[in-house]
Amino acid sequence: MVTGWPDRRLIDLFGIEAPILLAPMAGAGGVELAVAAMAGGALGSLPCAMLTPEQVREQVAAVRGRSQAPLNLNFFCHKPAPAPAQSRWLAALEPYYREYGVGLPAEPPPLRAPFSDAMCAIVEETRPELVSFHFGLPDAPLLDRVRASAAKIIASATTVAEARWLDARGVDAVIAQGFEAGGHAGRFLPADPAAQMGLFALLPQIVDAVAVPVIAAGGIADARGVTAAFALGAAGVQIGTAYLHCPESLIGPGHRAALTSEDAERTVFTNLISGGFARGVPNRLIEELGPVSPDAPPFPHATAALAELRKAAEARGRTDFTPLWSGQTARLARPIGAREFTQRLISEALALLTQRASAPILAP
Amino acid sequence: MVTGWPDRRLIDLFGIEAPILLAPMAGAGGVELAVAAMAGGALGSLPCAMLTPEQVREQVAAVRGRSQAPLNLNFFCHKPAPAPAQSRWLAALEPYYREYGVGLPAEPPPLRAPFSDAMCAIVEETRPELVSFHFGLPDAPLLDRVRASAAKIIASATTVAEARWLDARGVDAVIAQGFEAGGHAGRFLPADPAAQMGLFALLPQIVDAVAVPVIAAGGIADARGVTAAFALGAAGVQIGTAYLHCPESLIGPGHRAALTSEDAERTVFTNLISGGFARGVPNRLIEELGPVSPDAPPFPHATAALAELRKAAEARGRTDFTPLWSGQTARLARPIGAREFTQRLISEALALLTQRASAPILAP
Repeated sequence: MVTGWPDRRLIDLFGIEAPILLAPMAGAGGVELAVAAMAGGALGSLPCAMLTPEQVREQVAAVRGRSQAPLNLNFFCHKPAPAPAQSRWLAALEPYYREYGVGLPAEPPPLRAPFSDAMCAIVEETRPELVSFHFGLPDAPLLDRVRASAAKIIASATTVAEARWLDARGVDAVIAQGFEAGGHAGRFLPADPAAQMGLFALLPQIVDAVAVPVIAAGGIADARGVTAAFALGAAGVQIGTAYLHCPESLIGPGHRAALTSEDAERTVFTNLISGGFARGVPNRLIEELGPVSPDAPPFPHATAALAELRKAAEARGRTDFTPLWSGQTARLARPIGAREFTQRLISEALALLTQRASAPILAP
Repeated sequence: MVTGWPDRRLIDLFGIEAPILLAPMAGAGGVELAVAAMAGGALGSLPCAMLTPEQVREQVAAVRGRSQAPLNLNFFCHKPAPAPAQSRWLAALEPYYREYGVGLPAEPPPLRAPFSDAMCAIVEETRPELVSFHFGLPDAPLLDRVRASAAKIIASATTVAEARWLDARGVDAVIAQGFEAGGHAGRFLPADPAAQMGLFALLPQIVDAVAVPVIAAGGIADARGVTAAFALGAAGVQIGTAYLHCPESLIGPGHRAALTSEDAERTVFTNLISGGFARGVPNRLIEELGPVSPDAPPFPHATAALAELRKAAEARGRTDFTPLWSGQTARLARPIGAREFTQRLISEALALLTQRASAPILAP
């Protein structure tokens, strides 16, 4: 196979066909999306932050039954705050509870959980080729066990300082997550959210700061973006939002419609959905309360009080409380199958990356 | 001269050597910076928003006496709000007034002024090859006079909608100003500041939306950035922050030091300095009041109440109230002369843009 990738480090390191990673998207990705992206030539990822260990085991088995390609398991590494008093948050939601005739869920729903001993045992058992972490890294004993499993380890950085921190702890590659990325920003060291960097600025500064290969994430949805990321020094790219459009993603019809609407041009960071900062298309809650509220409890606790509201609204076909996660480039992508999207992306990127091989240098 | 620019539209349209524009930076740019950048091969710009018509005439004459290259004059097009009641703003500043023993200036200082009949007469007289506008466009009668002067007209867009608006009014090129850009965001149509797009996302969406060439701005400070901008569809780039480092810029030593400090990795949008949203390194005022305050009067009125504070602090060698405008890539650039910087940038960018002409396509 002819290839023109200008940087082969990730291809060799991960044993993959092309340096394109399907972003792990908790709640939106899964077996079907991973298998289709892998069939197209991308590195498949399973988002595990909202799964039980048993579900992870089942999903890995399902993927392995359909693909021999390398697989990435993604985990969160936040340190969950104890469940806080929510009186101000409940007061803010009270008008919606009245409108929909619901309240707090009888049983608290499962929240995004951090990487644990039980999950680590699943990694040791299922032997994914890659493990990626969001919100930092697990403590050294767990990290050492993951490394001993032979998995390559990668993690997200939203600042140059975070990239240096990860590099110093021996990750195999750093994901430079630009401010454009949809879903949760992976920030884990103290930093002003107002100072987040766009990928154009963040990527070359991280490339200059670390020794390991850098994977660009946030704002990349087509072959132009892949080519630009390589120009800025990336060794590969991680793509999320573009894959949300694919029929294999698990998002509902309201979320799907939002991604192609004009509203997708004005995504914002909000803390209303989970308590953590995450980018999405504004839903009714965000429009009415503003994207950021001091009343929302810290990550991941804001979710619980919204669970019944979301369910009731979605039953009426509404996205009033549904997370409409999206990066800033939703409108660059279209709803085609993940396999076809990946194949096209790779062939178009290779064409762009090598087209100058045949273009003459002009003398005016 | 051999050139490998992949897109020659701006070179031909503006009659320039290379599709690199020196960003007009009110208060920081001027004759020396413009002449040096032009000598290196960039399109020179004079920021005119804080000048009198007579000063513009003098500066154009000074540039013309030293360079035959095309010149861009930049103007603001805001609709100034009437001077508002400032009691809350003055109350917020009161502790600083006490500390420095100053108050409101005896005479209100000159504020950033919009393009006017008098300025238009200077354009007609001095015949710049380009006129660029920030915060939209002037009303049709003035715009028609500028067009009749034979100047090419360009203007900034911070959203896809603004780019379409400018394209529909017949600009010759659109500047896609990414969220990474230092100084004032050129937003002029109603839009949530929280929804600003990074250049990686904004640029290709604007390229897809308009017929005219697009100039990428914000986050570009080296040859990698130039190359990436072209990959995303730009026909040229506008560079500001990197030129601030040059000895020809008019910024003071405190601002200069801030650009190379670690603080330059955490620039923020603030409305404290002018009332409008602009990106810079946090000074003491921003650190203490937070970057955005509802008490700051609207653009451009916040400046007046800070004038004496700034003067008094700078006299003590401090930047407590000094605008430390900077984009997110200050740390990618170094303090070298603007001519040398431009020459290096052009030759390095051309090398990157054409290097693949000699790279073989590998079969693994």
